Amino acid sequence: MIAHLISIGNELLIGDTINTNAAWLGKELLTCGVETEKVITIGDDDTLIKKALRQSLKRADLTIITGGLGPTHDDITKTALADFFNVGYKTDTQTLEYIQEVFKKRNIPFSESNYAQAQVPENCKVLFNKAGTAPGMWFEEDGHIVVSLPGVPSEMKYLMTTHVLTELRKRATGQSHYVSHYMNLAGIGESTLSDLRLKDVRSLLNNGVNMAYLPGRHGITLRISTFAPSLDSGKEKLEVVAEAIRKQALEYVYSEEKDDSLAATVGRLLSEHGKTVAVAESCSGGFLSNALTNIPGSSAYMMGGVVAYDNSIKEKILGVPQSMLNEFGAVSKPVAMEMAKSVAKLTNADFGLATTGIAGPGGGTAEKPVGLIWVGFWSADEHFAMKLQLFKDRMANKERSAIIAMDVLRRKLSGIKTYPYDVKPEFE
Amino acid sequence: MIAHLISIGNELLIGDTINTNAAWLGKELLTCGVETEKVITIGDDDTLIKKALRQSLKRADLTIITGGLGPTHDDITKTALADFFNVGYKTDTQTLEYIQEVFKKRNIPFSESNYAQAQVPENCKVLFNKAGTAPGMWFEEDGHIVVSLPGVPSEMKYLMTTHVLTELRKRATGQSHYVSHYMNLAGIGESTLSDLRLKDVRSLLNNGVNMAYLPGRHGITLRISTFAPSLDSGKEKLEVVAEAIRKQALEYVYSEEKDDSLAATVGRLLSEHGKTVAVAESCSGGFLSNALTNIPGSSAYMMGGVVAYDNSIKEKILGVPQSMLNEFGAVSKPVAMEMAKSVAKLTNADFGLATTGIAGPGGGTAEKPVGLIWVGFWSADEHFAMKLQLFKDRMANKERSAIIAMDVLRRKLSGIKTYPYDVKPEFE
Repeated sequence: MIAHLISIGNELLIGDTINTNAAWLGKELLTCGVETEKVITIGDDDTLIKKALRQSLKRADLTIITGGLGPTHDDITKTALADFFNVGYKTDTQTLEYIQEVFKKRNIPFSESNYAQAQVPENCKVLFNKAGTAPGMWFEEDGHIVVSLPGVPSEMKYLMTTHVLTELRKRATGQSHYVSHYMNLAGIGESTLSDLRLKDVRSLLNNGVNMAYLPGRHGITLRISTFAPSLDSGKEKLEVVAEAIRKQALEYVYSEEKDDSLAATVGRLLSEHGKTVAVAESCSGGFLSNALTNIPGSSAYMMGGVVAYDNSIKEKILGVPQSMLNEFGAVSKPVAMEMAKSVAKLTNADFGLATTGIAGPGGGTAEKPVGLIWVGFWSADEHFAMKLQLFKDRMANKERSAIIAMDVLRRKLSGIKTYPYDVKPEFE
Repeated sequence: MIAHLISIGNELLIGDTINTNAAWLGKELLTCGVETEKVITIGDDDTLIKKALRQSLKRADLTIITGGLGPTHDDITKTALADFFNVGYKTDTQTLEYIQEVFKKRNIPFSESNYAQAQVPENCKVLFNKAGTAPGMWFEEDGHIVVSLPGVPSEMKYLMTTHVLTELRKRATGQSHYVSHYMNLAGIGESTLSDLRLKDVRSLLNNGVNMAYLPGRHGITLRISTFAPSLDSGKEKLEVVAEAIRKQALEYVYSEEKDDSLAATVGRLLSEHGKTVAVAESCSGGFLSNALTNIPGSSAYMMGGVVAYDNSIKEKILGVPQSMLNEFGAVSKPVAMEMAKSVAKLTNADFGLATTGIAGPGGGTAEKPVGLIWVGFWSADEHFAMKLQLFKDRMANKERSAIIAMDVLRRKLSGIKTYPYDVKPEFE
């Protein structure tokens, strides 16, 4: 089944509201085997609404309209629908009684525009709305379904969950199931992954399996998905591709859970091993601490750390010798190593991570340009630092250096012997 | 000028990504007098892309396409465009050299798909992309403008700001001018601001001046805007409203610059006064340090700090007496005050800020529930802490406690005697 979504509202077009409804609908429809092919966003405009409807009925089995059902004069979806289907109105008594009761309870006078809320086009089936005052509407003509819902996310979700999805699932019986699998990777770039690692995986995709690269802040998420006659047969098809990806890039896959972060993975690994971490941050300036402490329960394994922005803190709190700072500079291998070791010792942590570098945009020199960053690592067994040449962009440098630090810790905790792509440890 | 937006990407249709680009574009285009009539969201599908383009060219003066320009096989916008315009490809040498340089610096092999990034349809003007590797493209045929941009928000925004909006503003000359003014507020909620402070300002808005509340992570931005025959006459109209807002809520207005952050404002004030700050974070876990160090040049006034997540760090590094921790608990007024003072002394900073609280979701008790947070402040003249009862949400608690700490420092540096709404300092 193919769906088109029509999102109605001027506020969406001038950017005062972000269209979160469309994403939610797309995701939920998939669970009923319905594929969203198109989302059309338009203003509260009679001509445009009818035109969008006409176009949608040509292609889609299901059209879901959200928005424009409020009580004010700029909400015209209902009149556009009655006009489009060329029908009159009927009063939905259940809705009328419900609105009257709500208004009485709240002691609000019942006005003409409230009465109009219970008027609906003759040819629709009413979807009773307990989450608000505007009812949803279900039209069915010549095998096409048109559903009209309020734009307020809570009301839209209530009506979808209570009425629409249930009905669609009933009808989908015997049809194909959407199955997906997510793999999260860190420590490798999109093009390197695609060209050097997953080139051969592509040939497995002619089997109705789709693979999408979703680059995010943490790295890359691969979504592999397919439609299959049953969930089990779908999962089987996906597993073939997932296994091929693991074969080519296992050390980069930090988890296979949707919406999972690298910081959460590191947290789980630390908890499993009963280990703790502490961080000493210069160039990342708190990004790494912040990422690690975003995870609920992180106080069990994150001791804390030091944001050693000023050199005096590197010396005074972390005990980096002044002579070392003078000889090698703050952005150097010995300082990164010393910071990692010192913060671990100071806090009795099992692992120490450190960053020191030129985040930019200022502060670079010919010898130490913006983007030069050293990441330090300390554990009782291993002590090293890694030289990175990252970006011109301050925020990207803070983030990426923190991610590499976390990814190295993840590999150590997982017993992986390799390092993020193109990153080499330098031992003492 | 009428614009249509075409957002491309399967991830938008299956709900993995919310289309925030469309809202941003709609808002920014308005500032050039361009009205967005429609947004069409479709997948990475050659036929649908060309169909959407054809339909758009019939109605719109300007079509902006986002997405589908990545280096992998599922990104097909560029080939669809070349096909649509029936042209071949040319190599953009500036982009090629830039990508090669970037890859060389990072020591990543230059692969075939990277080379393809610098190939563009013959008939386009290239919009050089410093924020990524996919260039933007500007097509102009029979009076229609078609712009193709990467879907990654940071790259899209960079290309819009650097190239597209400037060009559109140039072409808008002679039309009525869109004039806007932004006022950023912290330390007050949207409804309190609207009901208690700005009630009377509303009556000034019948003059063609629009006022929008844009709640953001930092607080609230008020955008007042109007269309006027000249920039000067527009500015005059806005100034009347701005002055009324200042009269009602001056102490909450931290700046009147678009996209300005509270952290940047605090940074400017510290620089102006030649003062420095250090932070001791427990519940905010690095959020405050990270926010302050996001500002370029912050190393001049941000000494750094301590993420005192574990109590042992509060004791060992910050010297909070064990007896105090035992008597009052880590989440308490004396500990917040001690942390603020100690981190300032330790780093020789002029100001010390501290947070300690129950970020949640776990760790709350009847006496100290989730969301209870103490923020400490120390300077040579003043030493106090503020008790906050915030949210159930961990991320919101980290963020809001950091913002209140920054806002209090802003007020001190600006000579403002009041505190954020409903926040009271408790001195020793």
